[in-house]
Amino acid sequence: MNYTCILQVEDEANEVFLLQRAFAQAGIANPVQVASDGQMAIDYLSGSGRFADRVRFPMPGLMLLDLKLPRRSGREVLEWIRSQPGLNKLVVIVFTSAQYVGDVSLAYELGAKSFIIKPTDFSQYLDIARLLKGWWLQRNQFPPAAEIGLTIPSARLPLLPRVRRSWVDLG
Amino acid sequence: MNYTCILQVEDEANEVFLLQRAFAQAGIANPVQVASDGQMAIDYLSGSGRFADRVRFPMPGLMLLDLKLPRRSGREVLEWIRSQPGLNKLVVIVFTSAQYVGDVSLAYELGAKSFIIKPTDFSQYLDIARLLKGWWLQRNQFPPAAEIGLTIPSARLPLLPRVRRSWVDLG
Repeated sequence: MNYTCILQVEDEANEVFLLQRAFAQAGIANPVQVASDGQMAIDYLSGSGRFADRVRFPMPGLMLLDLKLPRRSGREVLEWIRSQPGLNKLVVIVFTSAQYVGDVSLAYELGAKSFIIKPTDFSQYLDIARLLKGWWLQRNQFPPAAEIGLTIPSARLPLLPRVRRSWVDLG
Repeated sequence: MNYTCILQVEDEANEVFLLQRAFAQAGIANPVQVASDGQMAIDYLSGSGRFADRVRFPMPGLMLLDLKLPRRSGREVLEWIRSQPGLNKLVVIVFTSAQYVGDVSLAYELGAKSFIIKPTDFSQYLDIARLLKGWWLQRNQFPPAAEIGLTIPSARLPLLPRVRRSWVDLG
């Protein structure tokens, strides 16, 4: 069993609750951190501000990324991760609603390892949690934690344009 | 359930037998093709020679790749896939023996989606087959099949050097 930190990037509190309940029932004991928007995910991964404390906010080995997010979209987060050579070993699993199924190809092009549609009832959340535990935490080999991280100091990172390039604007 | 073709790249007949038996017991009904060395995997993906018949040899959506292979290593196959923009959406899962665990980082850098160590007994093969079915064939979204393929005609592909760069030479 791999006890890597899991970063869930999700703005809806209900979704966070559902997944964490499913994780608990599936016996996933890994630390789970939540970033509630795309900018916070980038800040977390780059260790900016309060996230510099890597004891409290460990670098994750696995990230569950919603695509529809405030401030910066999931796509922008993927693009930012791709611009960071030291993050290409972070296992990013897109976990998003069915309306975004048209973005599957783009997500893989941007480096996502897998693309999962959020289910509609709790029993399916539990099924996903059990599969995630079995495949990713028990069977999958992760690169050494020390190899995941920024190779460019965050202070010198290029700023991304703030313009929101929407995936699919569902209103 | 996704019925994409699965390409197993594996030179040992016993391993092919074990996995196919596990697939059958797990109820995986997808077509499974086997390439018994790295060069055959490249020929299959590029549709060279007899593999031009895409009815008999469909383009896979998922590939299980051993790293220790005759003719071209798994690493060379990964490098070749990475040189093909049209293949970056192929889901490549490294499935190899425990001695290659030191190559996890390299495999991710070269685009592998996941890295699984071959188990030592059949019950574990069955566990992996069930997880593969649940996560990858039932939950994961694949890009449209038509989007996976070569974008450079195979006749114009650059030839890779024939020099064998070994992963770990285990003798």
